[in-house]
Amino acid sequence: MKLQVAIDLPTTTDALALLEKVASSVDIIEIGTPLVKAEGLAVLKALKAAYPEKELFADYKTMDAGKLEATMAFEAGADSVGVLALANDATIVGAVKAGRAHNKRVVADLIGVPPQARLTRIAELRELGVEHVELHAGLDEQAAPGYSVSTLLETIAGSSLPFAVAGGINISTVGIVKNAGASIAVVGGGIYGAEDPAEAAKALRTAIIA
Amino acid sequence: MKLQVAIDLPTTTDALALLEKVASSVDIIEIGTPLVKAEGLAVLKALKAAYPEKELFADYKTMDAGKLEATMAFEAGADSVGVLALANDATIVGAVKAGRAHNKRVVADLIGVPPQARLTRIAELRELGVEHVELHAGLDEQAAPGYSVSTLLETIAGSSLPFAVAGGINISTVGIVKNAGASIAVVGGGIYGAEDPAEAAKALRTAIIA
Repeated sequence: MKLQVAIDLPTTTDALALLEKVASSVDIIEIGTPLVKAEGLAVLKALKAAYPEKELFADYKTMDAGKLEATMAFEAGADSVGVLALANDATIVGAVKAGRAHNKRVVADLIGVPPQARLTRIAELRELGVEHVELHAGLDEQAAPGYSVSTLLETIAGSSLPFAVAGGINISTVGIVKNAGASIAVVGGGIYGAEDPAEAAKALRTAIIA
Repeated sequence: MKLQVAIDLPTTTDALALLEKVASSVDIIEIGTPLVKAEGLAVLKALKAAYPEKELFADYKTMDAGKLEATMAFEAGADSVGVLALANDATIVGAVKAGRAHNKRVVADLIGVPPQARLTRIAELRELGVEHVELHAGLDEQAAPGYSVSTLLETIAGSSLPFAVAGGINISTVGIVKNAGASIAVVGGGIYGAEDPAEAAKALRTAIIA
């Protein structure tokens, strides 16, 4: 299982400062959607220039213009880009085409897909050419009473595609994410919100290898 | 009915060049999602500085972190911001709260909501505090065979909230959009893709007033 750090910080400067502390412990660097909307393509270019050896994931949450948005991200340095699983099939296909043209990854983000509809949508996405999905409880959903990573994981059992998991993962839950068969654990606040982000990232890396 | 120009162009420079030709004919300037992702908050600031008297709509298509993303847009100069109607209710409520705190507009974008579910979702959005919705066929949906503005409009009859309409409107369809009771007609390619954008915007303005 790979470790992806989701950077939901306001500026490119903040992102670079965080990465100085944590990059050595992570496989994938994710530029969160608010950071994309704050800094535009410049943050993709800056992070790729600083860490050319790391996979750079642009969390675009594309809902329309799939080919255009994925192409923009790839040309600015992203190695992978996120499209909403809820988007029109034509949008998904457009993003997949861009991924094939650039030999880069497109990840369909299941955020907002009702739990009981997830496996069906994953099968449809596979038919559309998608090769990777992300099981994702958003920040607003995580804040709701009763939310837990283990309940989230129950909805992905039997997935016909490899899946990343995002939704408030931290050192105490990364183990159950690995046991559930995730290919990638996405950690945001569990790293950037930790008192010592470098230590938090190292501890997650150690827990994953163990 | 107001006229909103949707700017789906790649750079702030392109947007400003278009607005020089068409701003006098439109009520609302929309920064399209790809332009938001290309230029970040800088494009909001630049367009608001250039046209402080026009309403500036940021097409954020927010799917998570509703309060954060709406606040970012408002603080950078947006007068209104778009949140996805498909988002979690908590995301919608967060955006609505930011709108109230800044005395600015939040528009729930119905893109991706199945036709038969639109009126129900509009009623729910109203309960969540939303005051404006957008009936929206995306660029990828418009490109599908059989798409028409009149079919799109059939799905909004009986809306309990004022609605904008976006989906390939041009001079030949703006009349039926007005007759359907829209509060705002959103025109993108019908203006920026016209041979003479200034003339196209003027003609749309004239058609709306007539």
